[in-house]
Amino acid sequence: MYVNKEYVEEKRKVIQILEQQRIILSASEKENVEIADFGLKELEKQGLQLIVYINNDFYCAKELILFPGQTCPEHRHPPVNGKKGKLETFRCRQGEVFLYVEGERSSSIDARLPIGSEHYYTVFQEVKLKPGQSYTIPPNTLHWFQAGREGAIVSEFSTTSMDEYDVFTDPRIIRKQKPL
Amino acid sequence: MYVNKEYVEEKRKVIQILEQQRIILSASEKENVEIADFGLKELEKQGLQLIVYINNDFYCAKELILFPGQTCPEHRHPPVNGKKGKLETFRCRQGEVFLYVEGERSSSIDARLPIGSEHYYTVFQEVKLKPGQSYTIPPNTLHWFQAGREGAIVSEFSTTSMDEYDVFTDPRIIRKQKPL
Repeated sequence: MYVNKEYVEEKRKVIQILEQQRIILSASEKENVEIADFGLKELEKQGLQLIVYINNDFYCAKELILFPGQTCPEHRHPPVNGKKGKLETFRCRQGEVFLYVEGERSSSIDARLPIGSEHYYTVFQEVKLKPGQSYTIPPNTLHWFQAGREGAIVSEFSTTSMDEYDVFTDPRIIRKQKPL
Repeated sequence: MYVNKEYVEEKRKVIQILEQQRIILSASEKENVEIADFGLKELEKQGLQLIVYINNDFYCAKELILFPGQTCPEHRHPPVNGKKGKLETFRCRQGEVFLYVEGERSSSIDARLPIGSEHYYTVFQEVKLKPGQSYTIPPNTLHWFQAGREGAIVSEFSTTSMDEYDVFTDPRIIRKQKPL
């Protein structure tokens, strides 16, 4: 997992952002705030912060925190061990998020592609989510998302999460080590 | 569904409680705030308010809102159509909630049994949940819960929700009409 000492400050920032929105974390949740830079080492540009509330054999619930303009790179959740890929519902809690999924390209898009990584973004059907708005992404469907100017908090409800099997378009990305 | 005109004021109250906690609802969610009095017509004592964010064939996410001291009556989620009963995780977001499940009776409990309905409460293993704390209730397990003095907001993450099949200990209760 790409959580290391250099991200202590970002972890603190995430906890503060959530507290401002009256989302209170338990001590162990605070400890387990996940800072994912996907191995790209440009967290503010391409990265994601997460809290996992629950992840069992049936369902998963997370809070995703995005810094202003931050992008979660394009990926899909493939079938694993005979199980369909993850089905997931995003619900915007705060801020604004621009989500892109497979399908007809939108005539114009609000997100700005991360400079230097433009080639690794290939789906452009835009779904804009404001607080209270939801969207469900089918299994094994390419998607990526970017926060608006204020950053965003997105609740994610889904089937079981197995992040280590995620397939990213950018071959440089390592999400998590696969279990041995 | 026991949502009727007399609960317009309660619906407004729920939306206001959520807004105070910076939980913003979409217009359709606002319309679909569910006020469940379980047919007992004593909502403030025994009842529950709910918002369903998503409920599909795999997972369900809700926000449960409890008024101060309000009790959700004892029930269980039985197997339906060959599927195990609902597995559900409660995560307290705000306030305090006293949850009771099957198992050894706690030596003392914080909740007060709703007067006149004491006979319909039979499990007393207490789990206290403060903001950030979670508990997962196994399928087909009797449970009931009561909010503390300030009321409570509880996020519920679970397998598919089929409320109409819930089995309540109190035979007077009707949760929802079963589909024909």
